[in-house]
Amino acid sequence: MAPRTKGTAADLAWTSVFPAGERGDRLSYVEIMRAVIRAIEAGRLARGTRLPSGRDLARMLKIGRNTAMLAYGGLVEQGYLVVRPRSGVVVADQMPSPATPPAEAGEAAGPDWRGRFKIALADDAAGAARAGDAEPVFAFTYGQFDPSLFPTNHWRECERAALSVLEIAQWGRDVVDEDDVELVEQLRRHILPHHGIWARPDEIIITLGGQQARYLVAQLLAGRGTVVGMENPGLADFRHILGATEAVIRELVIDEGGLVVSEALDRCDYVYVSGGHQCPTTAVMPAERRLALLERAAARDFIVIEDSYDNELLREPSALAALKGLDRHQRVIHIGSLSKLVAPGLRLGFIVAPALVIRQVRALRRLIHRHPPGNNQRALAIFIERGYYRGYLRRAAKALGERSLALDAALRRWMPDFAWRHSEGASSFWVEGPEGFDCRRIAPAAAARGVVFDAGDRFFHGPDPCRRFMRLGVSSIPAAKIDAGIRALSEAVRQCRA
Amino acid sequence: MAPRTKGTAADLAWTSVFPAGERGDRLSYVEIMRAVIRAIEAGRLARGTRLPSGRDLARMLKIGRNTAMLAYGGLVEQGYLVVRPRSGVVVADQMPSPATPPAEAGEAAGPDWRGRFKIALADDAAGAARAGDAEPVFAFTYGQFDPSLFPTNHWRECERAALSVLEIAQWGRDVVDEDDVELVEQLRRHILPHHGIWARPDEIIITLGGQQARYLVAQLLAGRGTVVGMENPGLADFRHILGATEAVIRELVIDEGGLVVSEALDRCDYVYVSGGHQCPTTAVMPAERRLALLERAAARDFIVIEDSYDNELLREPSALAALKGLDRHQRVIHIGSLSKLVAPGLRLGFIVAPALVIRQVRALRRLIHRHPPGNNQRALAIFIERGYYRGYLRRAAKALGERSLALDAALRRWMPDFAWRHSEGASSFWVEGPEGFDCRRIAPAAAARGVVFDAGDRFFHGPDPCRRFMRLGVSSIPAAKIDAGIRALSEAVRQCRA
Repeated sequence: MAPRTKGTAADLAWTSVFPAGERGDRLSYVEIMRAVIRAIEAGRLARGTRLPSGRDLARMLKIGRNTAMLAYGGLVEQGYLVVRPRSGVVVADQMPSPATPPAEAGEAAGPDWRGRFKIALADDAAGAARAGDAEPVFAFTYGQFDPSLFPTNHWRECERAALSVLEIAQWGRDVVDEDDVELVEQLRRHILPHHGIWARPDEIIITLGGQQARYLVAQLLAGRGTVVGMENPGLADFRHILGATEAVIRELVIDEGGLVVSEALDRCDYVYVSGGHQCPTTAVMPAERRLALLERAAARDFIVIEDSYDNELLREPSALAALKGLDRHQRVIHIGSLSKLVAPGLRLGFIVAPALVIRQVRALRRLIHRHPPGNNQRALAIFIERGYYRGYLRRAAKALGERSLALDAALRRWMPDFAWRHSEGASSFWVEGPEGFDCRRIAPAAAARGVVFDAGDRFFHGPDPCRRFMRLGVSSIPAAKIDAGIRALSEAVRQCRA
Repeated sequence: MAPRTKGTAADLAWTSVFPAGERGDRLSYVEIMRAVIRAIEAGRLARGTRLPSGRDLARMLKIGRNTAMLAYGGLVEQGYLVVRPRSGVVVADQMPSPATPPAEAGEAAGPDWRGRFKIALADDAAGAARAGDAEPVFAFTYGQFDPSLFPTNHWRECERAALSVLEIAQWGRDVVDEDDVELVEQLRRHILPHHGIWARPDEIIITLGGQQARYLVAQLLAGRGTVVGMENPGLADFRHILGATEAVIRELVIDEGGLVVSEALDRCDYVYVSGGHQCPTTAVMPAERRLALLERAAARDFIVIEDSYDNELLREPSALAALKGLDRHQRVIHIGSLSKLVAPGLRLGFIVAPALVIRQVRALRRLIHRHPPGNNQRALAIFIERGYYRGYLRRAAKALGERSLALDAALRRWMPDFAWRHSEGASSFWVEGPEGFDCRRIAPAAAARGVVFDAGDRFFHGPDPCRRFMRLGVSSIPAAKIDAGIRALSEAVRQCRA
């Protein structure tokens, strides 16, 4: 697989590994060895990479063949390279790339990149599990994936069905700015109606998960001076997205019914509402307040951005219509996820909004990446059509309901001086510690006991965010581990108090 | 699947279909019929949607059960609804949603959306095939998918392999801002080295196709007043992306060796180069010019954005190292596609850049949509690892080479007064018409004969873009159809002359 090196032009490919060619003087075998070792240790030459043959190397670097062979011999002896039949000289397998490669000696300093960045982006993946991390024993992080719930056989069947020659001809294409018509159809027939939304196809666009739906809406509608009302505490990610648009964020009060509808909303151009279960408190907005919010939006000319956060497991038939379902004044933009609960890694979500808005979102999405991958859209359409999505939601609701009961019992047992809020169908608990509790301070002690959770302060806005809260999710922890997990968490709390 | 309507709260879900409930007066059966017909004709109630039972409807709308049954009876009689055993009353299948639904009588006008859009987005999907379109007989459009070349069995095998329980546990997760480590590894071992690029994992990010790579780079680095040099003619999409950033575009001259390296570049902050085959001329930049460009970038402090456009089929081993492979001054950002040739619908691409830049791009991508779908990344990693990618490229190169020969012969035969440019391994021809030729004027006549192509004017910048050119792609047209296609095209040209 490695490039063979036949012509002079091809030699250019090795320029960055053997950079001394330009000086005109010939490399010694020690210099060649150093160059290869540097490239391997810098992580540039991956394990298994095939090097040029001795003959090619000699020709490329204008050195004697003996010099080339001496260099390779030395590198094989030192274990950097191995000789493989038919492949020639390749980089040894047991030479791991260092995790943090050393600074490269021969590398020029390069331009002032930092001065060139137009947006300042915080690295806010805090608390999120990394692919390389060891799995925590007790994972109470929100929204994480539970392979034990994943409908492996059903999903396989649907991916296979999407791989028929006929289907491939459909989704294999670059459809520029379109969506999979089947997925849109399944969405409007089988998913949106559960939330009281009866949408036309031209009022729907498929996105790469809820995250991209939020990004597209913010990019299209928020700019310098746009006033966006945000729940406080609320979804930190939407604040970050808005941060890049120069919009002004107005902090809005929430209570046990979610966002409080008051005159505080009137000066907003947009009001963001996490609409299934409020993020992070899990509050569900009562029907009267929903209607009041919509009336106010029409009277005061603001738009409601409804993020159907964590709404998949709302009791079915949905206890309450989504705001979008009640939207007679065309003032609601509805955002949702299709994959969060099934497998977040699939990254599929959607926006429902007036056709005029969807057309603009579509043009914007086209600039960003054209369209979401076709095969996944088609497989998910089949998954919904065959009833597997609905069936999966039922199983997930059952499992998460059991876990929620177990978590409630464990909290009562081990952390009776804490208070918590949890609404039916929500996949997390919002837990408040007693006076003096600091979620950031106990996090390391908890982690040492294998317990991870979402620190509550990241949902609060302001210079000194409240640290009294934790969010405990149940989407990936088995019910049987919950009691022991909360016990370990309570020990961490006790340790920090002492 | 349709929502059952049991509780009062659930009735809210039907509010937008039967809106008169709020008036307090009871609906007549005619009014109910009208409401249902309106919702069906507006495309809101999809075929197969189940309506509330007569009993539920009566309770919801506070009407007599007889009124409800009369309304449903009338609708069944008129063919809008059908009665299905076990499902009750559902919307009839033969009621197609109108393509352009009529304005809805009961719908409020809604807010002034246009005044709210922060970015003006042109609908520039011109020339692109739509999912609903009939396949043209002779499709000379660029970059389109050829199902007959798609390695169906190999791809199926890899998707299946990515569906093992172990694999699902890996890709099913929300990995926040990470990439599939296997795909990155395959990329740096088996794909980048062919272009002379030896990159560390932290210098690579996976994107949703080349399009998103371009978007991310532009968003991060271009802002008000940033000067970006663009080839003219060049990739229109990158101009559109830049248009949303308030960057200043400087038009740069190209010749048969691609971008001309001159003092015109010196005032640029960034210089965009379509680096495999120049878009749209297919020119390949010679080695000396590559080195001169990089030296100039270092001397004049600009950055080169290298878009490895249409480079997958460059002769192997790559005749020339990519600019990134020669980049000793850390001044090249390299953009590439992994799926364009295999199946553009998969949407996978990448960026190679200094680690500092990749970290920022990663933070930006996280805001936009977190990460590309995990299952496709894993399936593609397996596809590359098993050698299928390389094998596919070989087959595709062979097929496209044959088609290019056929196209060259057909042009000589039928359009001898035209001139064209095509470099080995490019998947398109850049065809120049004789004096007076207008690509836009012949497009309708060509389409009438089943011939579609990319009009050349969209690659030129300026108020009066040159219309002398067409781009003819060979990625989706079978060799056997090329002669007849060019003959038909020549007839269209002749017709327009007459």
